[in-house]
Amino acid sequence: MQTELSKKLGIEHAIFGFTPFPAVAAAISRAGGLGVLGAVRYTAPDDLARDLDWMEQHVDGAPYGLDVVMPAKKVEGVSEADVEAMIPEGHRQFVKDTLAKHGVPELAEGEASGWRITGWMEQVARNQLDVAFDYPIKLLANALGSPPADVIRRAHDHDVLVAALAGSARHARKHADAGIDIVVAQGYEAGGHTGEIASMVLTPEAVDAVAPLPVLAAGGIGSGQQIAAALALGAQGVWLGSLWLTTTEADLHSPALTRKLLAAGSGDTVRSRALTGKPARQLRTEWTDAWDDPAGPGTLPMPLQGLLVAEAVSRIQKYEVDPLLGTPVGQIVGRMNEERSVRDVFDELTRGFEKAIDRVNRIAGR
Amino acid sequence: MQTELSKKLGIEHAIFGFTPFPAVAAAISRAGGLGVLGAVRYTAPDDLARDLDWMEQHVDGAPYGLDVVMPAKKVEGVSEADVEAMIPEGHRQFVKDTLAKHGVPELAEGEASGWRITGWMEQVARNQLDVAFDYPIKLLANALGSPPADVIRRAHDHDVLVAALAGSARHARKHADAGIDIVVAQGYEAGGHTGEIASMVLTPEAVDAVAPLPVLAAGGIGSGQQIAAALALGAQGVWLGSLWLTTTEADLHSPALTRKLLAAGSGDTVRSRALTGKPARQLRTEWTDAWDDPAGPGTLPMPLQGLLVAEAVSRIQKYEVDPLLGTPVGQIVGRMNEERSVRDVFDELTRGFEKAIDRVNRIAGR
Repeated sequence: MQTELSKKLGIEHAIFGFTPFPAVAAAISRAGGLGVLGAVRYTAPDDLARDLDWMEQHVDGAPYGLDVVMPAKKVEGVSEADVEAMIPEGHRQFVKDTLAKHGVPELAEGEASGWRITGWMEQVARNQLDVAFDYPIKLLANALGSPPADVIRRAHDHDVLVAALAGSARHARKHADAGIDIVVAQGYEAGGHTGEIASMVLTPEAVDAVAPLPVLAAGGIGSGQQIAAALALGAQGVWLGSLWLTTTEADLHSPALTRKLLAAGSGDTVRSRALTGKPARQLRTEWTDAWDDPAGPGTLPMPLQGLLVAEAVSRIQKYEVDPLLGTPVGQIVGRMNEERSVRDVFDELTRGFEKAIDRVNRIAGR
Repeated sequence: MQTELSKKLGIEHAIFGFTPFPAVAAAISRAGGLGVLGAVRYTAPDDLARDLDWMEQHVDGAPYGLDVVMPAKKVEGVSEADVEAMIPEGHRQFVKDTLAKHGVPELAEGEASGWRITGWMEQVARNQLDVAFDYPIKLLANALGSPPADVIRRAHDHDVLVAALAGSARHARKHADAGIDIVVAQGYEAGGHTGEIASMVLTPEAVDAVAPLPVLAAGGIGSGQQIAAALALGAQGVWLGSLWLTTTEADLHSPALTRKLLAAGSGDTVRSRALTGKPARQLRTEWTDAWDDPAGPGTLPMPLQGLLVAEAVSRIQKYEVDPLLGTPVGQIVGRMNEERSVRDVFDELTRGFEKAIDRVNRIAGR
């Protein structure tokens, strides 16, 4: 499965795997794709360096990438405390009440929230990049718009390709104008932040909007058939995130969450602002229902909502409070029905792709 | 573009075109697809007979089908007047106020509303079928669930295949259990009534759910690339509706509406209950905004909403009141940018399909 882009990156299959887990990213790269490590949780640069060291030892020389969350707009002179102060008391009380209703225990004294808003701040992402450019990463992806111009230049100086996620053809063109190298067209059905346009429509629109820049299709892809479909739509590769959450190498720290993912159908996700303040697809839970309920206080804009719920989300995850327990995931969750190794998943993707190509050739009379 | 299903129906390309316009349906069949005439607006059986006579004279012997809107559940002993009486006065006033705000003129004395709720009633659909089975239709599609068992039997007695639209794998299985022959898997991005699951995810789920019954992919398809994608996902054909609205053979009776469709982007539709009470994708307008506004009275359930707004919709369309003027249409509207003949559209579809197959074969190294 070779496109111009996969050849440029020296990978065997044009399959890009986004994951917060180094073991998953390394396994994707070893299997012939490009493992892309999500950096948002590395608020301490040393932690990122440690995991990139580990990646280096486990990719067998295969290329890999890094995904950061760098806001398109710089927020000058605003501290986390300033942002904290903007959260209305009624919203704080709603978090307390919702947690209390479900008997969610407190974190232990001094125990940090696992998911920190600071990971979204530009300075944190810049610290991550200072670490990352010491490693031979091949791709730098940004989940929140185009990275700043100096970051794009710095990446190019290190021969690192820059990718940015887009939910519309207009966003894709904006990224192209900013000088990035790859657009990741993220359809409505995708996990995490996503727009209203479904992959079937978005992929070719993004391709037309930025040609000859390459487009990766993201959203709704978890089988070889879906990869064939995305490539037929003009993509130069596919960007898969959700599918790896139930691999044996993934470390969700929650057997209950893994069970929920394995049991969920494609209709069990919701595009909700509950997690960050921007619409993000995730498992539908009583937590998302509470935030999406017109009778409730509603969500706050980014970054307030993320800061407001960070500790609550950590508590729900740590204590595996089933009715509230969720995670960003796409509609493809309906196909994630057993825990398997990354290698097994990857082999099924490439075999399924070949079968889909056979099928369309038969239909086309070839 | 031949699948088992297209061979069974004796059509050259596995492209099914749904349209309310006989001239469009006939042109699709002549071009080698299967034109499927939407019957919902034919409340008088004679009108349907007249247009089917016309079809017979203009399809050059090619097969064609009919699409009815037959409720899955029979409503016994309830008249249109009974339903009218269930509409709250506040909602009637909201319609009046919204029309008045935009200066929408009244219909002339005795002028009928062009879009009648009665078209949704089972008896009307049965009258349509009494007419239709006198013609050599090859396909009977139902847009509202499986048709009643006796209708399926009657179709089969006439060698007519029965299709039903489904928005989830569960719906698809239900249709299969009812004895239908073809599932039309209608993705989130489709025009008209549609669910939450996007075509990229829904198509293979529906295929797996009802195999070996054939599935047609609907939603987001308006190019040969998208046809190739849908077939790679396991569909035995594609079901296109929106794309024909801007063909020269279509008769929207509104140059302003045609202009709006040609100008709209993929982000200019909304899935709203404004038209019928069930979520249906349509152009986003000040009319849909008014109904979707949390500050407004909100929509009524089907069939009340349809009955409530029928006359208003006719007035908006007749007088082409631009800010309110809309129509059901899918996200593919972003690709509908010029008026062309059905034949030109069809040729572009088949050429684009061949190019997409070339492309995926190159990527697969074949």
